[in-house]
Formats: sequence, C-alpha cells, structure tokens
Amino acid sequence: MIYVGRKPTMSYVLAVITSLTRSNAKEVTLKARGQAITTAVNVAEITRRRFMKELKVKTIDIGTEEMPPREGESRTRNVSTIEITLRR
Amino acid sequence: MIYVGRKPTMSYVLAVITSLTRSNAKEVTLKARGQAITTAVNVAEITRRRFMKELKVKTIDIGTEEMPPREGESRTRNVSTIEITLRR
Repeated sequence: MIYVGRKPTMSYVLAVITSLTRSNAKEVTLKARGQAITTAVNVAEITRRRFMKELKVKTIDIGTEEMPPREGESRTRNVSTIEITLRR
Repeated sequence: MIYVGRKPTMSYVLAVITSLTRSNAKEVTLKARGQAITTAVNVAEITRRRFMKELKVKTIDIGTEEMPPREGESRTRNVSTIEITLRR
C-alpha cells in the first residue's frame, strides 16, 4: 500500500514503479484522502501512460473516514478516500 | 451526466438527487477533471451516506484528457479525469 499525501506527484510515481519492479509484485494499491485524491489519480494515470504501459486499473474504491476534530474544534470531520489498485 | 467543477459541493449533491428523483432514472454519472476529482468523490460519498442510502457505486473509471495550452504557453497539457456512476 502506498499512501499518497502532499509530496510531489512524481515521488509517488517512482514509488509505484519501484514497488512493482523490485519485489516482482503483480499489484500495488494507492490510498489517498481529501485533496490528495486527485494526486492519487494523477499518479495512476502518469505511471500507466508514461512508464508502464502494460499496467491496468484493477479496482477503484471510494469511501469515507471519520477524522478527529481540528485543533480548537469539537466535531469530527468526514473525509473522502480513494483506493486504486494497479495490476501488471 | 453531471459535470463537476468549481461550484460548492452541495450544489452537485442536489443535482444528483434531483436527477435521480425527478426522472425516475436508475443511474447518474459524475464526471470531473483535475482538482474537481476530489469534489466528485465527495459528492458521491455525501449523497449516498447522508441522503440516498440505497445508492451504490456502480463503476468508477479514470482517464487522461489532452487539454489545449494555457495562454502564453505552447504545449498541450494532460489532465486526469474521473467518471463515477451511481445506481439506485
């Protein structure tokens, strides 16, 4: 599982490529929350269009996670998530 | 098809609910590009968790579209897209 956050998109692309080529794994899953959802989709698209053309999107799941309140607030927040599994 | 852009999330949630209840349609598809991808996921999650609990995610597709260059630039840009189809 690769957690996609605020690093540059290309560092996650590299993580996907490394994960698939180093370990002989057939699959890798990207997981992201909130604004990083767009980054996760970009990572999947850039990896399979530019670098590993045989890569397929196996599954995409979306969900919601309850997050603790921000400092100074009292209510939990709901944040959307995405999980994209790529298979070669 | 509902195109998700920069309006408030709730206006798209309302569009989904209206589309499904007014027309007796069984399905509605959300489409978004770039940063609006996160909004589209939020719309799907909020609609099915808060308002229409019988709604299921039927399919999610991601892709890439070539966009014309920005003003003052010469190269086309690749932008990621998402299509989320909800079914009741």
